[in-house]
Amino acid sequence: MITSSSNPQLKYVQQLAKKARLRREDGVFLVEGPRMFYEADKAQVQKAYLSEHFYENMEDRSALEGISWDVVENSVFDKISSTMTPQGVLCVMKQPRYSLENLLKKEDPLLVFLENLQDPGNMGTIFRTAEGAGADGIIMTANCVDIFNPKTIRSTMGSIYRMPFVCLKEEETQSVLRLLRERGIATCAAHLKGEHTYDREDYTKGTAFLIGNEGNGLTEATAEASSLKVKIPMEGKWESLNASVAASILLYEAYRQRRNG
Amino acid sequence: MITSSSNPQLKYVQQLAKKARLRREDGVFLVEGPRMFYEADKAQVQKAYLSEHFYENMEDRSALEGISWDVVENSVFDKISSTMTPQGVLCVMKQPRYSLENLLKKEDPLLVFLENLQDPGNMGTIFRTAEGAGADGIIMTANCVDIFNPKTIRSTMGSIYRMPFVCLKEEETQSVLRLLRERGIATCAAHLKGEHTYDREDYTKGTAFLIGNEGNGLTEATAEASSLKVKIPMEGKWESLNASVAASILLYEAYRQRRNG
Repeated sequence: MITSSSNPQLKYVQQLAKKARLRREDGVFLVEGPRMFYEADKAQVQKAYLSEHFYENMEDRSALEGISWDVVENSVFDKISSTMTPQGVLCVMKQPRYSLENLLKKEDPLLVFLENLQDPGNMGTIFRTAEGAGADGIIMTANCVDIFNPKTIRSTMGSIYRMPFVCLKEEETQSVLRLLRERGIATCAAHLKGEHTYDREDYTKGTAFLIGNEGNGLTEATAEASSLKVKIPMEGKWESLNASVAASILLYEAYRQRRNG
Repeated sequence: MITSSSNPQLKYVQQLAKKARLRREDGVFLVEGPRMFYEADKAQVQKAYLSEHFYENMEDRSALEGISWDVVENSVFDKISSTMTPQGVLCVMKQPRYSLENLLKKEDPLLVFLENLQDPGNMGTIFRTAEGAGADGIIMTANCVDIFNPKTIRSTMGSIYRMPFVCLKEEETQSVLRLLRERGIATCAAHLKGEHTYDREDYTKGTAFLIGNEGNGLTEATAEASSLKVKIPMEGKWESLNASVAASILLYEAYRQRRNG
């Protein structure tokens, strides 16, 4: 049992919670809580840390078979947890890796392309909604909030394990948009100046919804490179919806069309 | 100019940021930032506080005509602001009051009924999306997060000024649901066990969407009292969407039907 927060392993965990660069260099990230623990693919678990309390109350310990794990004294565990209400288990996970080709392999894929999205909660919610709407993947530009940020991970509520995604390098944005079009995937920009109302378009063929930054929307270069600008109509004084709400409305319209044929 | 944070007025402002009870007793709430300031109905502003910096940089001071205001020393202003990045202006506003009849006066109203919603961000996002979708009002049960909580106010991004709403007393939940049905308003519960797919129903007549708590969904009593349980279909491992995403999908489906006739 680990009984001190100055244990080198726990120090490493605390560093991982804070440092994007360390997570990137080591190709790992942290997940917290029973749900994330039980849903994890064991092959991806580098190490699990359980509080004494959590360990003692496990009804079935088969989740520990075949993975590397340690028990941590309750008070020490609470100290290293990055949440306000520690839930007794956290894991160092290997970062999943997908290629762009993974995301494009299905016929008529449904994709989300996020440009400079900044809010971890929005990012997580979009992962979750994209999974719900049956999307095939998420593409993120280099300036998006770090997907492996503990807050983002938490708000994906497990979708991080299942939704394929690709983080682009800064210079790749335009070439990937071009590639999507070459592959016959419509790139639909959610845009205030869209001439097409979103629910009048057909999303049953390959479609990527382009969603921009919370404050500024899509960059001009990206909006220009899109094959279609769609507008989500709005009453009242509003010009734009929350980014994750806009993504949800578009994804569920596509899903509605794909289900109802 | 106010130069000390122990000024009684500023002490009061700090108390208002923290104490729901004080806000309720005095019938006021706080708004922060230029957008909330400029969009405010002057008749509802009890007092505005401007940092020196904000005051000096105002291009047009007509926004100050007819309201009560004070300038506050920059460093003192930053201390009383409840945001991480103070934006130089905050106001004590009178709480708007709407009756249930206000919300029901339009023919075929579109309403949202929130039960025990706990997250300020979700609440604010639902206000904003409801305004976008042309909804006529929001009804909240007694156990919802305080709509006048500064975090909720912030995330409404101004919709708090324009979207009529009613906060019910604890014993009113069921009688209001009955009243809605008596008025011919369909009460559509977003429910995992809904037998009806949400996009196969008609929302062009009076409709209230019932949205439950983030973790637990609707109470059984409320789900039972609904006229229709609708399900938002989902792929993947998910059973439920984020509450504000679910509300957005339903509201925008209603709005789509109402626009496209």
